[in-house]
Amino acid sequence: MGYPTGITQGKRIMSKPLILIVNDDGYEAKGLYALVEAAKEFGEVVVVTPDGPRSGYAHGITMNVPLRLKQYKTDADGVDYYRTNGTPVDCVKLGQKVILKDRKIDLILSGINHGSNSSISIIYSGTMAAAIEGSVENYKSIGFSLLDYSPHADFTAAIAIAKKIIGQTLQHELPEYISLNVNIPKVPLEEIKGIKITRQTHGYWHEVLEERVDCYGRKYYWLDGWLVDNDPHEDTCEWALKHNYVSLQPVQFDLTAHQYINTLKFLEE
Amino acid sequence: MGYPTGITQGKRIMSKPLILIVNDDGYEAKGLYALVEAAKEFGEVVVVTPDGPRSGYAHGITMNVPLRLKQYKTDADGVDYYRTNGTPVDCVKLGQKVILKDRKIDLILSGINHGSNSSISIIYSGTMAAAIEGSVENYKSIGFSLLDYSPHADFTAAIAIAKKIIGQTLQHELPEYISLNVNIPKVPLEEIKGIKITRQTHGYWHEVLEERVDCYGRKYYWLDGWLVDNDPHEDTCEWALKHNYVSLQPVQFDLTAHQYINTLKFLEE
Repeated sequence: MGYPTGITQGKRIMSKPLILIVNDDGYEAKGLYALVEAAKEFGEVVVVTPDGPRSGYAHGITMNVPLRLKQYKTDADGVDYYRTNGTPVDCVKLGQKVILKDRKIDLILSGINHGSNSSISIIYSGTMAAAIEGSVENYKSIGFSLLDYSPHADFTAAIAIAKKIIGQTLQHELPEYISLNVNIPKVPLEEIKGIKITRQTHGYWHEVLEERVDCYGRKYYWLDGWLVDNDPHEDTCEWALKHNYVSLQPVQFDLTAHQYINTLKFLEE
Repeated sequence: MGYPTGITQGKRIMSKPLILIVNDDGYEAKGLYALVEAAKEFGEVVVVTPDGPRSGYAHGITMNVPLRLKQYKTDADGVDYYRTNGTPVDCVKLGQKVILKDRKIDLILSGINHGSNSSISIIYSGTMAAAIEGSVENYKSIGFSLLDYSPHADFTAAIAIAKKIIGQTLQHELPEYISLNVNIPKVPLEEIKGIKITRQTHGYWHEVLEERVDCYGRKYYWLDGWLVDNDPHEDTCEWALKHNYVSLQPVQFDLTAHQYINTLKFLEE
């Protein structure tokens, strides 16, 4: 691993921000390299990703098998790359507690995901779980997603948006213990109208469990479906994305439905 | 599958409530049978569980391999048991969309988990993810956890508590789109002081990634740690449990940190 020597500004030694990048699409994903591209001008970058796709792993952690970790390259810009058999959330923990354990991480970035993590998709998302995991220990943490599932998606606009948000996030204080869920519409940069701070659209996945029969006559199922949006208001993530805005949702890990604590007091009887 | 014929009350045919039970500890877990024991007097019970332990799977869903589903027994009380290679959340989806697809589910129960799902543990929990999954489509959903990790844990008190809460939940309206996170202290029933409606304690897992070397000289890691409670207030789940109350937390799936939407408007610039 390369340790930065610091940038001299007058008499003060300013160390470069230390940025941990993780993802859920695995170490070969184009979106990972797009995020490295966006981040590397802002500081020292260390990448820890799964050794293959982990979409839909949500906040899963690995408890039943041992975790492996391998540094497999350092690129021409000095970015160190590690991969693991673990989940996206394991990547954050391995980054914090093993690879960078004696150092202060300034920013945790996750993505850029191939596909949306708006609305209820956030709860299934490995990309956003990794960002949320960062916020649990109060690291500034951002998950980026592009609304394009293709492995060959064009990340040009997403890189420009990510650069802008990374720069702002490093310069400003953010509220404590939150992460940011950034979703980027699938349009060229000049068609993006701006960034909107949004709330999570109320919706659900209408699932279809497609039944098939294998070569041996045994049934199996593929989980498929589509997002149903029940919430056509202008302050939501889905509205913003449909109108070519970037959606930026502040995300918390307190799942308490505080508004119903008094309603449920009858269950104390 | 056994379909209920209904209970005649005067001239009205009342059908028995239909209860779907899932878990994350798998089809052999003692806690699963404890929950069936608690639930079966209230209605018709159908069980769908993973084919082995899935602790720490959180809200994971299976996208990379086909899902298998097998009905492996019907017990003497007519409870149908299914198991799958999927996750706890997959169990809910398979129960809703394949096994019970033409029927109205009245209650989804998850557990009884071997071990706590209080505080931040909720975000890693397969048990609670399954309950949350039920609430996404507005089913009444409850996750039960006993503060005892042992596979041989004594569920006597937990069964009594679960019966009480299941009965209340079937009788009363609950707020829409929430689930209940019920944690039960590891003490005999007579030492349980009551039920408290709580909020999620602010805390985190202090992780230790224990480094070992395998027989071939290669490093590996086990994820271990302990819960750090930063929030010693009397309205929290941790406080209730430490004082021998059952903790009942209303849980939502909207992760928006609404309180910071205005704070973050500067990022729209």
